[in-house]
Amino acid sequence: MVLKGVKIIDLSRVLAGPYCTMILADLGAEVIKVENPGIGDDSRSFGPFKDGESLYFNGINRNKKSIELNLKDENDRMAFLDLVKDADVVVENFRPGTMKKLKIGYETIQKINPGIIYAATSGFGQTGPESEKPAYDLIIQALGGMMSITGEEGGSPTKVGSSIADINAGMFTAIGIISALFHREKTGEGQMVDVSMLDCQVAVLENAIARYLTTQEDPKPIGNRHPTISPFSMYPTADDYIVVAAGSPKLWGSFCDAIGRKDLFQDPRFADNQLRTENIQELDEIIAPIFELKTTQEWMQILESKGIPCAPVNRISDVMENKQLKARNMIEEIDHPILGSLKMVGTPIKLSKTPGGIRRNAPKLGEHNDEILLK
Amino acid sequence: MVLKGVKIIDLSRVLAGPYCTMILADLGAEVIKVENPGIGDDSRSFGPFKDGESLYFNGINRNKKSIELNLKDENDRMAFLDLVKDADVVVENFRPGTMKKLKIGYETIQKINPGIIYAATSGFGQTGPESEKPAYDLIIQALGGMMSITGEEGGSPTKVGSSIADINAGMFTAIGIISALFHREKTGEGQMVDVSMLDCQVAVLENAIARYLTTQEDPKPIGNRHPTISPFSMYPTADDYIVVAAGSPKLWGSFCDAIGRKDLFQDPRFADNQLRTENIQELDEIIAPIFELKTTQEWMQILESKGIPCAPVNRISDVMENKQLKARNMIEEIDHPILGSLKMVGTPIKLSKTPGGIRRNAPKLGEHNDEILLK
Repeated sequence: MVLKGVKIIDLSRVLAGPYCTMILADLGAEVIKVENPGIGDDSRSFGPFKDGESLYFNGINRNKKSIELNLKDENDRMAFLDLVKDADVVVENFRPGTMKKLKIGYETIQKINPGIIYAATSGFGQTGPESEKPAYDLIIQALGGMMSITGEEGGSPTKVGSSIADINAGMFTAIGIISALFHREKTGEGQMVDVSMLDCQVAVLENAIARYLTTQEDPKPIGNRHPTISPFSMYPTADDYIVVAAGSPKLWGSFCDAIGRKDLFQDPRFADNQLRTENIQELDEIIAPIFELKTTQEWMQILESKGIPCAPVNRISDVMENKQLKARNMIEEIDHPILGSLKMVGTPIKLSKTPGGIRRNAPKLGEHNDEILLK
Repeated sequence: MVLKGVKIIDLSRVLAGPYCTMILADLGAEVIKVENPGIGDDSRSFGPFKDGESLYFNGINRNKKSIELNLKDENDRMAFLDLVKDADVVVENFRPGTMKKLKIGYETIQKINPGIIYAATSGFGQTGPESEKPAYDLIIQALGGMMSITGEEGGSPTKVGSSIADINAGMFTAIGIISALFHREKTGEGQMVDVSMLDCQVAVLENAIARYLTTQEDPKPIGNRHPTISPFSMYPTADDYIVVAAGSPKLWGSFCDAIGRKDLFQDPRFADNQLRTENIQELDEIIAPIFELKTTQEWMQILESKGIPCAPVNRISDVMENKQLKARNMIEEIDHPILGSLKMVGTPIKLSKTPGGIRRNAPKLGEHNDEILLK
């Protein structure tokens, strides 16, 4: 595994930090999760539960070890600093200032281990006027503009269904840490990685900013359609939904044929992509009732036979049974001492020579106290 | 810069691949974008445009160089393989099989440069029964389950407003490439990085899968509220919207006080978080009309004075003027030969010793032909 031999002391809780260290652990790093004695990561008490175990916690903390340390206690603080001595990386996602208050800030840690890579993920970053504000995924999705461009056409701003602000911050932090490891391997130099959820949310807005800069108008939610390609959207069918992407002239021709409306191909209102996008309401009024006549499966067969990109709108149960995902080992099943068999999502980073993966279930609170603290 | 001296030959087009190489270029890698002669990356012709320049293309391709090669032409193919000889990384996002057809697949490249890191980002990955299917962001958001959990409560599945399926695949590919560089630095061994957009989309679903595994019921869109914490949602105000997160007992007390309804704190229907979540409809019927009485700014002052996490729902124009983002250098302004001053989003990976950033605008098509091909 690519990060084998990399030792990470992980003080992070709940999502952005733990998602980052999950990626690193999946790639082979030894991640030692430092938790509050008797309580642990808050997300141990987040639902959904099964047999008293948080499946939420279990999914994000596989491959990690757990030790209990009370960082406000001087003995435990010393034990933590002792661990840091031969660690490669420290990860935390406290509010900026907290680590310093605990007398384990970057300056302190750096003195003990000059080559350390110290990664801090926070809502707003370590610098700037709002650095110390509290943040949740919902707050950052709102502030970062993501909600303002998501939702039904003409509808209200809408949150992305998963905690994408936390998760993207975790991913960017992982990129920063591995980059810093690469640099240290070449130069011996450690450094600090400072990642802000708000920065990350803005970094994934894509062309909304370009659209705003061009028109000086705020992009709004436009449902499922593409802003500049048509037809490229979701339609209800007789039994469910389907998404269809038929933007090119050739695909538009095949599409007219597939829905039994070859006449549309000659219709001057829909002569090219720009006209189809301008007249999308008229076009949708024609298309939508046609899609309601057959089931999603029937439409899938018709559209695929003509080479038109399309897909059902999978529910989570469909995702869990998806053949392609199973073939890619993306739905893994592990043995859990309490839950028995437990399914979770595999790692999407497929490396040919040093593959990562799920090696062990999430730790019980303090499961590795003896192994790590008594050695 | 952390990736200084890393040479990347980039055959990728439009979004997932170019987003990956943007991250790598921002971190200091030399990214040489190989484009079709006279045409270039399709996204050069994607709107929005300003003075004939695609702002979409410009945002994602800063810091890169551009050369023109027709990979179907034998001379150009040899020129490409010549470039590969002393490159560190090749990135492509063709449909699986295309590189082999062009006689520049991983096996060929590896023979010329055994230490090469070859990264392929595709819709479904290099393996599995659906490997060669076409994919767009909309298709993957639909198949990956993300749309099924996003949208208004009781409403239809909804696409995330940015192309998050492409972007997350680009991010995971960057993690794979930098990990492989780290491994090669230690061992000299190169390898292939195979990333699938569908795998990545499923990897960021977060607790939706845990919820499904617990109840065997498919999670549905629930708008902006939190599935298990209340109040934790968006509300319309007199002039706009606000998001509020007041889940803990203490914050719930402060919240009741802030909205002038101390009586709710004693109301048995809302006595704890579980009851508030179960009775969220009744609670929202009380809260929503109160929020409509004042403006977002007025509510922000009231709620912040009581320490309750809250935020306006920023539009893109608000994001561009955000003080925290500006202080973090996340809204950068660069000189562009045609557009003059051009704003774009900075890099969210802040490294203390080897900071990345935007060094130059996106290249004109073939701008570096002479520099790179004639040397």
